[in-house]
Amino acid sequence: MAEILTIDPALVERYIMTLAQHGACGETGVCRAAYTPAWVAAQQQVADWCAEAGLTVWRDAVGNQWGRLAGTEAGPVIATGSHIDSQLPGGRYDGALGIIGGIIAVRALKERYGSPRRSLDVVSFCQEEGSRLPGANLLASRAIVGTLATEEADTLRSYDGETFREVLASVGLDADRIGEAVRDDIDTFLELHIEQGPILEHERIAVGVVEAITGSRTYTVTITGRADHGGACPMDLRRDPLVAAAAIIGEVLATASSMGRPAVTTVGRLLVEPNYPAIVPERIVLTVNARHPELAGGRALFARHEATFATVAAANPQLGLTWTGTDGGEPTVCDPGTVRLLAASAHDQGVTAKIMPSGALHDCQIMAQRYKAAMLFVPSKDGRSHTPDEYTAPEELAAGIQVLAAALHRLAY
Amino acid sequence: MAEILTIDPALVERYIMTLAQHGACGETGVCRAAYTPAWVAAQQQVADWCAEAGLTVWRDAVGNQWGRLAGTEAGPVIATGSHIDSQLPGGRYDGALGIIGGIIAVRALKERYGSPRRSLDVVSFCQEEGSRLPGANLLASRAIVGTLATEEADTLRSYDGETFREVLASVGLDADRIGEAVRDDIDTFLELHIEQGPILEHERIAVGVVEAITGSRTYTVTITGRADHGGACPMDLRRDPLVAAAAIIGEVLATASSMGRPAVTTVGRLLVEPNYPAIVPERIVLTVNARHPELAGGRALFARHEATFATVAAANPQLGLTWTGTDGGEPTVCDPGTVRLLAASAHDQGVTAKIMPSGALHDCQIMAQRYKAAMLFVPSKDGRSHTPDEYTAPEELAAGIQVLAAALHRLAY
Repeated sequence: MAEILTIDPALVERYIMTLAQHGACGETGVCRAAYTPAWVAAQQQVADWCAEAGLTVWRDAVGNQWGRLAGTEAGPVIATGSHIDSQLPGGRYDGALGIIGGIIAVRALKERYGSPRRSLDVVSFCQEEGSRLPGANLLASRAIVGTLATEEADTLRSYDGETFREVLASVGLDADRIGEAVRDDIDTFLELHIEQGPILEHERIAVGVVEAITGSRTYTVTITGRADHGGACPMDLRRDPLVAAAAIIGEVLATASSMGRPAVTTVGRLLVEPNYPAIVPERIVLTVNARHPELAGGRALFARHEATFATVAAANPQLGLTWTGTDGGEPTVCDPGTVRLLAASAHDQGVTAKIMPSGALHDCQIMAQRYKAAMLFVPSKDGRSHTPDEYTAPEELAAGIQVLAAALHRLAY
Repeated sequence: MAEILTIDPALVERYIMTLAQHGACGETGVCRAAYTPAWVAAQQQVADWCAEAGLTVWRDAVGNQWGRLAGTEAGPVIATGSHIDSQLPGGRYDGALGIIGGIIAVRALKERYGSPRRSLDVVSFCQEEGSRLPGANLLASRAIVGTLATEEADTLRSYDGETFREVLASVGLDADRIGEAVRDDIDTFLELHIEQGPILEHERIAVGVVEAITGSRTYTVTITGRADHGGACPMDLRRDPLVAAAAIIGEVLATASSMGRPAVTTVGRLLVEPNYPAIVPERIVLTVNARHPELAGGRALFARHEATFATVAAANPQLGLTWTGTDGGEPTVCDPGTVRLLAASAHDQGVTAKIMPSGALHDCQIMAQRYKAAMLFVPSKDGRSHTPDEYTAPEELAAGIQVLAAALHRLAY
């Protein structure tokens, strides 16, 4: 039965703008690091909306905000949501959409169909971005699936040097109770999110159904030469690390381009010392972030990058060239049944959809470790993300929520 | 008559170490920006040494410290010296050597030969580096030859925002009197300096006789693309300015290398925005500093670099690519007679010498606009310069001073 669910774009827009006031910065930016006063206010806003919609609300041991529309039958729940924290600055949509979409979808289902068979949980994850606690990306979902160790309360530190334990205490939470956030009663998790890239907009498709989430590896390449006077030292006596850096940058970007989608490689960070116009650099540190949503593809991409580093190092014996690689996780394959269900839901609602991988990391990839999980994307204007420029039109947001609601209906009713 | 002049290395070393105490920073560094208290103290030290040596001392309108051993005949004077200010941090030798060497040489000549026929002036230039007043490099010598306009007192500003007028007033000087620093009575100017490069050390030669000082042009290349999520934006939809930056860096460095000595090109400064590992850069600004001591060679080098910028821009229409070029001066040809005289003086003293260009800028190139002028270099250990690592052994310093003294003897006695 394919009843068309109607989601009011104006309502979605109102929720987006209201939530964006908590941590608003600049014209359209949001600066809402985890566990800050703006974050506390935003989580309270989420709780208020859930309560208004008739959901039971509670906050768990790490600060995730939950709302439940209780089911008439016992058994594992169907959950949806995303994260409330932002980059600094981030935009109004990253994370926020998945929470707002979950509340609006569940409210619409309740109003149209009453109580579900299975309980429907909406979750507002406490921290996904790592913008306050570096290296703590995806912390909220790790706490839920049970891979956040209590010891991390004392090893994770904020950019200001506080331990995670201290940060938790600042909002009235006790790090020793981290284990209580674990959920073993979730059947399926759905996350609605902006695409953060330009593919849907470019192809004029309303929703993306995410079948895999990228694996990534970040290399830090350090190239050491010798600072020389930019006039007095002849080229043939120099040990200029930029020669090797330029070769590596050119080659790794060309490698990912030639492999084609879905391989991507980014050199986003480059430090040059001493960074004066007339001094040959002494040292260059650059990052090579490579991603692929398939295990074999990722291995091939990483191997080619490592071969490039080795080749450039061998061609420049006058330089010191070292690299370290940090895995950002292996690719996540979303639950195939859930992917099919999302695609069918879009089809039922007459919403165009494309099966695609996610090049960005999401809590969904952690949730997929323990529960059936998949994602929905809506277009990002100009592919903007992690910037106040993020934008998705209200009608586009509503279409994504419509598909989410249809999928939740299939799963919970 | 080739009498061997003896310069005591221990004396030279003592002078170097004494002067280095003014503005000493770290183990071996010197932080002596123009017109600071450390600079005032250093200029006073120079004046005291000149007075001890029996020279008449005075400070001119911009703060250059002069000492004169009066000649028995009237007529234009023979001058030598270098600059007292340093990079931040710089080393003990850059600039300082030419002042100390001048004082020691003139004192040795006076002790050995008495009064010269022509007056011998030693000068400690107030500011050469531009480390306090950006863009004011070579200011001291410009004041002397008469190309420093009084208006610059109000347009030049220190890194702290003070006008040059205010900076002068802070040491009791009146900007309206800048014109009084002009000298029209100098016949020949000699400058002794560390090489700042590795050539003399590499070839095991005691002194360099500088026949030309490099011309330079600094390009600022700005490449604008679009910041994208490093995972979510496929390679084929990116506008990554680093693609063009890597191509330019590789090509301009290869161009100078393939042209060979004395062409040099340095990419020393590179700014990447926003400079996060997982965000495709939005904007890159890089400097291309190109130098050649010959007019035709410089023009060829600059033309090839500009062709590279144009080619890379044309190959990357998805990017904005603009550049500006700022001339750091045309090459300076040192006075051929003075170059021959310096070479002959080295030969007389049994000191190995090499005729060479200077890849670094020096006050001598400004002095050469109005007076006969040339330079002497001594080796720089490992080519180090503009760093606390600068080092030249006392014996090597003394050999340079010995040749300087012999040349001053030829010119003034």
